[in-house]
Amino acid sequence: MKKILLITTGGTISSLPSENGLIPADCSESIVRILNDKETTILLKNIMVLDSSNIQPEEWKMIAEAINETIQSVDGIIVTHGTDTMAYTTSMISFMIQNPPIPIVFTGSQLPIIHPLTDAVANLKCALEMAKSAYPGVFLAFDRKIILGCRAVKVRTEGFTAFESINFHSIGKITATGLHINESLLPHYTKPFKLCLNIETNVFLLKLTPTTNPNIVDLLIENGIRGIVIEAYGAGGISFIRRDFVSKIKQATEKQIPVVVCSQCLYESSNFQIYEVGKKALQNGAIDALDMTTESAVCKLMYALGQTKDIKEIRKIFSTPIASEIQTK
Amino acid sequence: MKKILLITTGGTISSLPSENGLIPADCSESIVRILNDKETTILLKNIMVLDSSNIQPEEWKMIAEAINETIQSVDGIIVTHGTDTMAYTTSMISFMIQNPPIPIVFTGSQLPIIHPLTDAVANLKCALEMAKSAYPGVFLAFDRKIILGCRAVKVRTEGFTAFESINFHSIGKITATGLHINESLLPHYTKPFKLCLNIETNVFLLKLTPTTNPNIVDLLIENGIRGIVIEAYGAGGISFIRRDFVSKIKQATEKQIPVVVCSQCLYESSNFQIYEVGKKALQNGAIDALDMTTESAVCKLMYALGQTKDIKEIRKIFSTPIASEIQTK
Repeated sequence: MKKILLITTGGTISSLPSENGLIPADCSESIVRILNDKETTILLKNIMVLDSSNIQPEEWKMIAEAINETIQSVDGIIVTHGTDTMAYTTSMISFMIQNPPIPIVFTGSQLPIIHPLTDAVANLKCALEMAKSAYPGVFLAFDRKIILGCRAVKVRTEGFTAFESINFHSIGKITATGLHINESLLPHYTKPFKLCLNIETNVFLLKLTPTTNPNIVDLLIENGIRGIVIEAYGAGGISFIRRDFVSKIKQATEKQIPVVVCSQCLYESSNFQIYEVGKKALQNGAIDALDMTTESAVCKLMYALGQTKDIKEIRKIFSTPIASEIQTK
Repeated sequence: MKKILLITTGGTISSLPSENGLIPADCSESIVRILNDKETTILLKNIMVLDSSNIQPEEWKMIAEAINETIQSVDGIIVTHGTDTMAYTTSMISFMIQNPPIPIVFTGSQLPIIHPLTDAVANLKCALEMAKSAYPGVFLAFDRKIILGCRAVKVRTEGFTAFESINFHSIGKITATGLHINESLLPHYTKPFKLCLNIETNVFLLKLTPTTNPNIVDLLIENGIRGIVIEAYGAGGISFIRRDFVSKIKQATEKQIPVVVCSQCLYESSNFQIYEVGKKALQNGAIDALDMTTESAVCKLMYALGQTKDIKEIRKIFSTPIASEIQTK
């Protein structure tokens, strides 16, 4: 018998219709019913009932603690979660639950479990296969694909193929012959399991547009921000004429506020070495997010600032993968 | 003979290597050489030499004015432009140059025109075919595809398939048998050509993360912002517990600051009618961006605020397509 912990948090999968539209409810018994099979014992922890738009750093800690409490005594963990912020949560849990000994598999659905067309059943079965697989890591199981938690992005608002694995292959899939995992893509954990709950929540994501006023950086700093992630253009383009963000990066860095720069392009890596604009940003202190997703870049900055306020140390944390969130060349 | 105006603005296509990486230069003569054929006269206007990370509202006006000056006396216009912010520029030009009588085709490249592997030649030839096609509209030609300007998004930092047409089919393509346009997808212009240079540049794009502090909305308003676009989660999820953005939308709306809400998912439409969180946002004044790209939502808000400060009027502008930037059901 395999022992699997199911943690439920709400989300569309657990939603019911109301006068005000779909609202999260407790459908954990229905979820357990789908997961139950002869080879598996399901332990249930219903820790919250939230639309994932309302899942925030405080909830991340509750989820991490619920995982940590049971991680040594089960074969795998499934977490059901709303799809809207699931990629943020799986990114953060990848940094909070480091070097896990077992599979931790997030899933959810685009339609409620009680809906006749629901994708919940297929997604739960996919998550269950992965949770029983013994491959350690933090994963997101959706639409018969297994994606590394720190590489997942929600790219579709309605389609069942809601999530994609960004700048990294999906590590597995369900076909008519069962679960297939590409073992060469799995993270290599060489260190012991570690729980890291200490994060700095005072972090801001700034997605540039050609009209963004650079004074926003001063405003953020005056109001106590501790770190900034800039979603720049293309491979790392940042304006320095008229609306001069490069000098703002310099000023922030001098004030010990780390500025991480990633790309607003969904696919492919930032690369500050190609263009004058990118080189200027690097020379002025920007920390390169490389091929990280925005979700992972924001969460990693929160994690890094929870460990140290020293910019050199933060730069080092950003160049060292924790859960395959960056590919080092 | 067809008369085509070429407007050059810089960008990778015109870049040359330097000690500090690629920098924009004037390669307009090389571009003209590629465009020249026996059936076409190319008129050249080199209006700026900028990395597109530095192209801002002030440059949008210069581009629109250069188009407007010649629009009545040529068969088509090609604008070469850096790829980084090209989708912002094509979105804004779709609102500044309304109901154009001729094709206005933006293009650029991922590698400089002088690079042996450059995509500039194929992209310029594609733009030229479209510019000579007589189909009116603002388009982006790239990697043998023709995309509506207000539907283009740069999705790849390095690949030649840098642009995608979002929530709308590409309207045309180049194959071995030439240019193929799906005429049913072209915008239907029923009104006369109009130049609209009046825009409000004091607009902010706020991409939510689970840690974003809602006080940012107060800070923006205190500092004179005139409009806000929120990139929400999924179909339009916005947190209202603890980090309460829904009441901030209400406060902003009451102060006559329009708040437009779009999705941070690349694909598919926002839909505030499904979930409690979305309905709350709508009830509190949020303007739904529907299936618009973020680039178009930001530009349309700048355009709308240039016409009126009345929130009811802005709401009306947002529900009425100008250049097929939204699909009305």
